[in-house]
Amino acid sequence: MEKVRRMERVVALTKLLVDNPCHLFSLTQFSDMFGTAKSTLSEDMVTIRDGLGRCGFGTLETVAGAAGGVRFLPYRSGDGTNRLLTELATKLATPDRMIPGGFLYMLDILFTSSLMVQVGEIFMTKFHRKSPDYIMTVETKGIPLAFMTARAFNLPLVMVRRDAKVTEGSTVSINYVTGSSKRIQTMSLPKRAIRPGSKVLIIDDFMKAGGTARGMIDLAGEVGADVVGTGVLVATAEPQKKLVEDYLALLILHDMEEHTKTIDIRPAFTD
Amino acid sequence: MEKVRRMERVVALTKLLVDNPCHLFSLTQFSDMFGTAKSTLSEDMVTIRDGLGRCGFGTLETVAGAAGGVRFLPYRSGDGTNRLLTELATKLATPDRMIPGGFLYMLDILFTSSLMVQVGEIFMTKFHRKSPDYIMTVETKGIPLAFMTARAFNLPLVMVRRDAKVTEGSTVSINYVTGSSKRIQTMSLPKRAIRPGSKVLIIDDFMKAGGTARGMIDLAGEVGADVVGTGVLVATAEPQKKLVEDYLALLILHDMEEHTKTIDIRPAFTD
Repeated sequence: MEKVRRMERVVALTKLLVDNPCHLFSLTQFSDMFGTAKSTLSEDMVTIRDGLGRCGFGTLETVAGAAGGVRFLPYRSGDGTNRLLTELATKLATPDRMIPGGFLYMLDILFTSSLMVQVGEIFMTKFHRKSPDYIMTVETKGIPLAFMTARAFNLPLVMVRRDAKVTEGSTVSINYVTGSSKRIQTMSLPKRAIRPGSKVLIIDDFMKAGGTARGMIDLAGEVGADVVGTGVLVATAEPQKKLVEDYLALLILHDMEEHTKTIDIRPAFTD
Repeated sequence: MEKVRRMERVVALTKLLVDNPCHLFSLTQFSDMFGTAKSTLSEDMVTIRDGLGRCGFGTLETVAGAAGGVRFLPYRSGDGTNRLLTELATKLATPDRMIPGGFLYMLDILFTSSLMVQVGEIFMTKFHRKSPDYIMTVETKGIPLAFMTARAFNLPLVMVRRDAKVTEGSTVSINYVTGSSKRIQTMSLPKRAIRPGSKVLIIDDFMKAGGTARGMIDLAGEVGADVVGTGVLVATAEPQKKLVEDYLALLILHDMEEHTKTIDIRPAFTD
């Protein structure tokens, strides 16, 4: 009977931990919840860590001290990452995704939660050491991807608007020049969205010349925040020189040939 | 040793199941993955179901037959739901959320993943019987909430635009009259986003007169889809008569008093 009860507790603890990535739980909290001694819970944590680790499902981190506890880090690397990037590249290379004007239809992929959960966890793994305080993106298509990254980090998402909304209170705006079409655009951010002095990670779905990312970096600077990294799902191979120097792309769009209907898109790296 | 191995397997299975709500896994798949007999896996499923059930973390559903298997349903009800709705109402009632013009600042709540995961699961619980094929929302603020609902259902999200984008191919558009300000607006949907004959669940963050929801219902009709339900996080008490007859609100905004800076917002029901 005790064996069964322990199993059920481990199931419940696993659910709590993996449902709240990067959230620090104290063993006291678990002890109150399940009426179990902390020493027993420590054993449970070892079991959970080993169970997750054996399948490459991330890891548990123990934080020592009075304010300590345990948290789930949804690290993804190696084979799992490579498989996902290859799957995404294959899905995005089907000819019917080509839209007149040289655009690539990605909405269905960007709006599939099972894929975006995994992409968010890859970005979390890659940028974890930068310790951002916020995930920033620009409306609209990239929101689910950025939100899943925010979830993997247990951080708030901040959304930059192409225009200011009256429903969001006072805003900070900048003008910026789009990298590819050289038009002047505005982007804005509610003033209360970011604490000055914060570290920001930019996540977006697509980068061509990098003008939008450049604009977000400038806008973050306006509110006294510092951009510690930029991650995009797809970057184009051309122009090779982007307006941001340092970014991580997961996939590279090498070529799109409208006549022959061929799309050449490949993982940007092997993990 | 076997005991430990079984525990670790149960941990990994729990993670797989809860990470993919409503996704049907076959026991054969698990059997190949862990090299374990299906009879043993069936016992594991009972343990996982009981472990989740005891904490109100949802349930496992077994689907019989050749195409059968097991899936995790993230049902939320009772105390957990009531606690969440009360927590949200309390957070939204702080005076500094009042924005000149009678608007309520909700962005930070809407962009907090740990809250939106739960709200998405509540909508899933409430609308599960309607068996929708898509979750539909309108850009922009409601996207994370709708996306988490789509995740809980394991369904694709479809986003309605306030204008048509060249990067999304051919679109269907309608004009509609906003319920509160009586302005004529346009909304559009990429043609390829929804299969004709599908069932659609509308999810949005806020409803005042219901003009936007009405527009989405009409737009769904244009592409041959049928709206089977409408869920919003917050609805205003006034106007009592909305442009949609049948909707589920989780919170009701009864009153906002700019002079005294008081916001009266409460859960719409007790679960």
